Amino acid sequence: MAENITVSVDALGGDNAPDVVLEGTAAALAADPNLNVILCGPADVVEPFAASHDRCQAQVTTEFITMGEHPAQAVRKKKDSSLVVGCRLVKEGQAQGFFSAGSTGACLAAGTLVIGRIKGVKRPCLCTVIPSPVRPVVMCDVGANADCKPDYLVQFARMGAIYAERVIDIKDPRVALLNIGEEEEKGSEFAQQCHALLRQNEPNFVGNAEGRDILEANFDVFVTDGFTGNVTLKTIEGTAGVLLKTIKGILGSSLKTKIGALCIKDGLMDLKQTVSADTYGGAPLLGVKGACIVGHGSSNATAIKNGIAMTARIAREDVVGMIGQAVSAEPAKAGE
Amino acid sequence: MAENITVSVDALGGDNAPDVVLEGTAAALAADPNLNVILCGPADVVEPFAASHDRCQAQVTTEFITMGEHPAQAVRKKKDSSLVVGCRLVKEGQAQGFFSAGSTGACLAAGTLVIGRIKGVKRPCLCTVIPSPVRPVVMCDVGANADCKPDYLVQFARMGAIYAERVIDIKDPRVALLNIGEEEEKGSEFAQQCHALLRQNEPNFVGNAEGRDILEANFDVFVTDGFTGNVTLKTIEGTAGVLLKTIKGILGSSLKTKIGALCIKDGLMDLKQTVSADTYGGAPLLGVKGACIVGHGSSNATAIKNGIAMTARIAREDVVGMIGQAVSAEPAKAGE
Repeated sequence: MAENITVSVDALGGDNAPDVVLEGTAAALAADPNLNVILCGPADVVEPFAASHDRCQAQVTTEFITMGEHPAQAVRKKKDSSLVVGCRLVKEGQAQGFFSAGSTGACLAAGTLVIGRIKGVKRPCLCTVIPSPVRPVVMCDVGANADCKPDYLVQFARMGAIYAERVIDIKDPRVALLNIGEEEEKGSEFAQQCHALLRQNEPNFVGNAEGRDILEANFDVFVTDGFTGNVTLKTIEGTAGVLLKTIKGILGSSLKTKIGALCIKDGLMDLKQTVSADTYGGAPLLGVKGACIVGHGSSNATAIKNGIAMTARIAREDVVGMIGQAVSAEPAKAGE
Repeated sequence: MAENITVSVDALGGDNAPDVVLEGTAAALAADPNLNVILCGPADVVEPFAASHDRCQAQVTTEFITMGEHPAQAVRKKKDSSLVVGCRLVKEGQAQGFFSAGSTGACLAAGTLVIGRIKGVKRPCLCTVIPSPVRPVVMCDVGANADCKPDYLVQFARMGAIYAERVIDIKDPRVALLNIGEEEEKGSEFAQQCHALLRQNEPNFVGNAEGRDILEANFDVFVTDGFTGNVTLKTIEGTAGVLLKTIKGILGSSLKTKIGALCIKDGLMDLKQTVSADTYGGAPLLGVKGACIVGHGSSNATAIKNGIAMTARIAREDVVGMIGQAVSAEPAKAGE
């Protein structure tokens, strides 16, 4: 039987909050009888919901961090915001994980500043699953650290590999460095330094990957700095979005194509579902002392439900404990 | 009437050389009565072709640079290779442009070392057209410089804007910096420095772009360092390739979907043609003293034909002269 887990949820996170958050939370609770939720937000939102749902507790908060605010400043200032309180519940051990579809920057700041880093972790990283039609692959860092040192990437690699293996069920994941050529000596100075350190320190490291390897799923975990990772992730989203939209336009362009569309509808719906980011519900911030998932701002109720379920799974698989063990086993000054 | 232009062509460049190169060269000559070609390669390849085609001259070479060789070393050593000789013809003024679908690294090295930089250009950059279904956009640098300084990007921006306006017919192109957030203060330290310099020095600069803006064609010229640009370009190619292949699989999966495929075939073929890299035939190396286009290794005859035509167009539009004027007009120590 699945372990009892408590997840704190930011009722105000996301473009369509609180409605889709409530709907997604209800679905997550219904799907997992060993899940408890502490819902953080204004009294008029969280109290009626908690009163009408089993295993849900209301945590009333009075402040709200908007998308436009400076993340770290907002987190420091608005101590009674749903986001900061949700993280504090993890810090204090009342919850094992936190989920929000709010401002990514503010979530990263709250995760790092409020929940806090695992001892030995240099920088937490944002990790995501890229839902390739070939098979899902993991990429990190996708935006927590715009400026990285090579030894950060060694930890990102290990954290990404643990996540891939424990949570995404990829056995013995092949870890590759995102670079601009396959050969060892290729790439920027930074990439070359990363390659050398990964070669020395990451047991699952298999070499360099290029941009086209991501959707082709030629490796399992793609490691990169948060700048390159974020540009790459958004490039994939944009490319897939424009192509699927263009094909939709083609299908609707005449009577003949509309008939064609009817014939292939099922296959296209399957593809659309496969490549949808909703399946994984968000990106975990790995390296902090609790499961912490940042959902897409545009999350629908399904994405919220899956994000909360994924938060619970990360907690149950003890990803935090495994990361702690891995970093404490590092040679004291490796790569510095 | 179009100006008389001579382009030197590397008969040995590309995975399918020399056959597709000869076929593409013949098509380019047939399409443009004011085009002359100097075909560089082994006697048994180039002499029979030149003898049987008007406006084509054979330039016999005895060496060949393979994909696996160290680019700069190979260019320095193999002075009688088709690639080096083709570039030398431009340097000596016998040709105004050079085209090869050979090793990108060797082409970049030969372009820079043999043809040479335009006075004032800090680093030549590899520029490409991304054939978005929305409209074509330009991106540079896509791989010539893995390590960049912020002031290089100011020149990349100007060179890309000149190319977009003169060769791709994008009037008054909007130039954006590829970054990880729209706001001015977003991004790595490097990106922030680039943003500030572009703001001061590039008249067409409109701000930051994100990865998803590329295929959505929300800007016309995307400026970035050669590492990020190369990863991004290959990510787009890989994403589009996997999605189109998956859709092809769906269309062939049953009798019903095959009927559907017949109904939408024309539209899908149009899309495939629109997003094909063949249309532009390759990426120009901007900032060297001649038109110099690097084709895709997998170029077919159409791509070769279009690449040669594009080389002639760059020469006719005097892109080299305009870049020379632009860099000589820069404040002497701008951004250094």
